[in-house]
Amino acid sequence: MSTVWTQARRAARMNPSIIREILKVTEKPGILSMAGGLPSADTFPVDALKAACDRVLSQNPREALQYAASEGFAPLRDWVAQRVASLGMKVKPEQVLITSGSQQGLDLVGKVLCDAGAPVAVETPTYLGALQAFTPYEPLFTSLASDAQGPLPEALAALPHDAPGTRFAYLLPNYQNPTGRVMTAARREAVVEAARRVGVPIVEDNPYGDLWFDQPPPAALSSLWPEGSLYLGSFSKVLTPGFRLGYVIAPPELYPKLLQAKQAADLHTPGFNQRVVYEVIRDGFLEAHIPSIRARYKANRDAMATALSSHLPAGCEWQAPEGGMFFWIRLPTGLDAMALLPQAVDAGIAYVPGAAFYAQQPDARTLRLSFVTLTPELIGEGVDKLGRLLRATLNAVQERAP
Amino acid sequence: MSTVWTQARRAARMNPSIIREILKVTEKPGILSMAGGLPSADTFPVDALKAACDRVLSQNPREALQYAASEGFAPLRDWVAQRVASLGMKVKPEQVLITSGSQQGLDLVGKVLCDAGAPVAVETPTYLGALQAFTPYEPLFTSLASDAQGPLPEALAALPHDAPGTRFAYLLPNYQNPTGRVMTAARREAVVEAARRVGVPIVEDNPYGDLWFDQPPPAALSSLWPEGSLYLGSFSKVLTPGFRLGYVIAPPELYPKLLQAKQAADLHTPGFNQRVVYEVIRDGFLEAHIPSIRARYKANRDAMATALSSHLPAGCEWQAPEGGMFFWIRLPTGLDAMALLPQAVDAGIAYVPGAAFYAQQPDARTLRLSFVTLTPELIGEGVDKLGRLLRATLNAVQERAP
Repeated sequence: MSTVWTQARRAARMNPSIIREILKVTEKPGILSMAGGLPSADTFPVDALKAACDRVLSQNPREALQYAASEGFAPLRDWVAQRVASLGMKVKPEQVLITSGSQQGLDLVGKVLCDAGAPVAVETPTYLGALQAFTPYEPLFTSLASDAQGPLPEALAALPHDAPGTRFAYLLPNYQNPTGRVMTAARREAVVEAARRVGVPIVEDNPYGDLWFDQPPPAALSSLWPEGSLYLGSFSKVLTPGFRLGYVIAPPELYPKLLQAKQAADLHTPGFNQRVVYEVIRDGFLEAHIPSIRARYKANRDAMATALSSHLPAGCEWQAPEGGMFFWIRLPTGLDAMALLPQAVDAGIAYVPGAAFYAQQPDARTLRLSFVTLTPELIGEGVDKLGRLLRATLNAVQERAP
Repeated sequence: MSTVWTQARRAARMNPSIIREILKVTEKPGILSMAGGLPSADTFPVDALKAACDRVLSQNPREALQYAASEGFAPLRDWVAQRVASLGMKVKPEQVLITSGSQQGLDLVGKVLCDAGAPVAVETPTYLGALQAFTPYEPLFTSLASDAQGPLPEALAALPHDAPGTRFAYLLPNYQNPTGRVMTAARREAVVEAARRVGVPIVEDNPYGDLWFDQPPPAALSSLWPEGSLYLGSFSKVLTPGFRLGYVIAPPELYPKLLQAKQAADLHTPGFNQRVVYEVIRDGFLEAHIPSIRARYKANRDAMATALSSHLPAGCEWQAPEGGMFFWIRLPTGLDAMALLPQAVDAGIAYVPGAAFYAQQPDARTLRLSFVTLTPELIGEGVDKLGRLLRATLNAVQERAP
């Protein structure tokens, strides 16, 4: 096609999100979707938000509706700085940058820290949205060997530290998307020690840390190495994603560049949204609200664990997550989760094939199931259908075998 | 300082916004600030927004508070596509991408279209925020020779079209920030014709087009060359900047990449905000609201025009704007607007030195005055103080002369 538009070199690397394309398919009515990464809409505090909108527009309309500081709403920054003390972090409000969801935090990190060809280390597998956020900045991804507790310290210790060096290791210690795994306290210490030894700083992403079921996760990685860590948080999973509110906590030396990148990106996160959320949470609302989310999600986790044990064929592997929103399943040899998806949708269910979550060498046998969007009853029904599909496919594979 | 954080090459180009730093100084109580680019808070439709928040959270809370489509809220996209027909544009809703303010549109344009070292043409002077948005993508700025009607067609015709080519010309045809100038219909046609001839597409930014005083501006540049134009619009100046809502209208061939860049940047613009704004505007609210803004701003424009004529010394040059929010002043030979600013603040007033708005060769004699944030009375007082400062400085300069 003849065109006057010449696109940037980096645009060639930007590809449609496979997950978003899948989600469009699974929005067909009647599909039992375990694909999305959406929190349960039943957890949204509608009345509290409605009252807060009214208060903000009654008490401070001129400020809430005007342009605002790029750093974010000062009382909300104060709140965040205090909040993360419970994760062992000692943070000043001046280190907090309010972002338009933590996805924007990832984009700003990419803009300020990534160069074309400079390595960035990620877990195996890792959050797809982070790969998408960093990719336009053309890093060279290094996929860290990982086990059920997260990345292996020896993989971090082996990172190249010659120029251009590994710019950072992107880590999700709590109920990771997609695997649901959590890093133990010992693993955290070993990982941070290894990173520190090779001089590779850590970008810690923690959207799910509040969603623990039996016991809170160990202290944040950022608490173990404050000057070598950047922390990303979010209100999406504990309040509402529809307000798009997250935050970055950065070492003082990095903060000014992140702030400039934020100004250039969208001037500031909506001041109205920041004030409304602050009105909701300022007096301890989350202390009662988050436990209600935990109880709901734990019941769903239990329902899915039971259903998986009942319905999945031998050879499937998984680990019940101790928090978060996802089960991560590995299918028996010979099955390919992406290839099976059309049949799954025909059967009335949806999941996310795991391949999309790998920076390198995808494992085609993996898939991600969310347990928070369906009711326990429908989870049973959906996993039953998945089990039937897998058994039928395994039988067909075995019949074809010599 | 010893650090584990290696910053990206592009980060070295990102510098603090001079304007934001100035605005911090001018937030001191008692300063008559004509510096900010803020719309008047008196124009914010607080009651309509309050009622709309309540309706959205009563009628569709689960959808409004959930993750949403990266493209934007479908009814709002439809509305935008219909709205721009009044500018002569024929647009399908599928070409509309809702952004977090039009500043984000600029960032996405930079990400998709700019490469290190590839030229981007801008007006002389141009919107500072666009320079900041594009700069991290390392374009080579070409400053187009411009007059009181905007960029000269011959400057566009002379743009290099050998590889890597000029990626686009960034143009603000209506009541430009900072100069307030508007491109005549004849200039628009000549500029588009020149751009088309050299194969340089146009990025048209139109935040102020609705703020005309006596007659609407001519048709959009994008209406003259749809396949070679990308259009940026905003709700910040006609409704509220605090909701951070803008939009990009892109040719179908560019849309998918902009959408991917949007997904990577922040997943989507807050669905709640989009629904609330749509609730406010869906039934013609702006048809009564915008004329009330025009009337208010026109009275302020008149007050500032009168004050400038009364108080500024001979040798100052300006042109009364036919819309928008700004006067652009050129001081007599020997005066430097940046150097004078500290004395201006001491005298109780603030403005923005014009130098920041130049991609190349700043004109140190220029400054920008907003006429929309102060009342007509205070505008008179502020301009009087500015005139006294300028006369005193001119006298001192003349005394020092041989």
